[in-house]
Amino acid sequence: MEVQQTINSVNGVDIDVLQNTVNNIKQDPDLGKCRFHVQNKWIDGNHNRTTITSFYGAKQENKHKQIFELDADEPPVLAGEDNAPNPVEHLLNSLAGCVTTSMVAHAAVRGIHLDEVESEIEGDIDLQGFLGLSKDVPKGYTDIRIKFKVKSDEENTERLKSLAEYSPVFNTLIHGTNVDIKIERK
Amino acid sequence: MEVQQTINSVNGVDIDVLQNTVNNIKQDPDLGKCRFHVQNKWIDGNHNRTTITSFYGAKQENKHKQIFELDADEPPVLAGEDNAPNPVEHLLNSLAGCVTTSMVAHAAVRGIHLDEVESEIEGDIDLQGFLGLSKDVPKGYTDIRIKFKVKSDEENTERLKSLAEYSPVFNTLIHGTNVDIKIERK
Repeated sequence: MEVQQTINSVNGVDIDVLQNTVNNIKQDPDLGKCRFHVQNKWIDGNHNRTTITSFYGAKQENKHKQIFELDADEPPVLAGEDNAPNPVEHLLNSLAGCVTTSMVAHAAVRGIHLDEVESEIEGDIDLQGFLGLSKDVPKGYTDIRIKFKVKSDEENTERLKSLAEYSPVFNTLIHGTNVDIKIERK
Repeated sequence: MEVQQTINSVNGVDIDVLQNTVNNIKQDPDLGKCRFHVQNKWIDGNHNRTTITSFYGAKQENKHKQIFELDADEPPVLAGEDNAPNPVEHLLNSLAGCVTTSMVAHAAVRGIHLDEVESEIEGDIDLQGFLGLSKDVPKGYTDIRIKFKVKSDEENTERLKSLAEYSPVFNTLIHGTNVDIKIERK
């Protein structure tokens, strides 16, 4: 006899799995404490490579299914070979992925169905800051704009914005975070 | 007759190219104003894909040598298929790449030679924030730590920290930035 299993899925998100994680963290908040980590190795010039193998969460180290490698480079105008996105483009990618996933997953648990989600993300950086040409010019992004196009029922539009705003990357960027840099000799 | 060209390179960074960019921006600061942009498309569940084709800088749109695609997914505990790094790991990658490139390039123009640069970046997120289980818990990263191991002359160590701190992603994260989200129906 074949046992049939029904997956309770909205927007392709398995609601039972997500609800199970939520319930576990409700009962034991320490299960929600995560430590994400990556390693980076300089290759040459403006080219470097990040490796991601695992993360800490649910009170244990969790191995990814595979090892992820991500390269960064710079375009020729910044003396790079343009072999990969540059780090500030990688930042926009992380934001794009995070607001999208946050919107889709939070919509799913509320029973809001989405058919299509696309977005354009852009941000402003004045290189005078990074290059040390002016102390008055910020070195990082000053403004980032996200424009979503979503196929869903009209009544959901305003609500989806507040769901996207659950995004951890969005919140890290609008509130800022502590970043500590230590350098040791090898 | 063969014309020989000498590349003035430190740490694999072509100093003449970088110095040329610096001089151009000094003369005309508008050349330094950049607008980076990416597009993202939701695939299914927690899986989405970012495409990067060009950026605005030096008063024009600059096409990348190739189209870059970056995927984001989530691990099984967050109802994903673990096909790609998740967005908060992508954020650490962008920071890793940026502090490394900033250190290497700023060292190069100051004549500081580096032999090897490796780093480990980790950051803390409590999922109670993202999951909406507690309003007192921040949704984003609260603390990020970067540990560099650098092979270079001993006298450079402290100076390299201040050069890494030119990083645009580092500065975006410690100071925060405006992020505006708009949603249109498709």
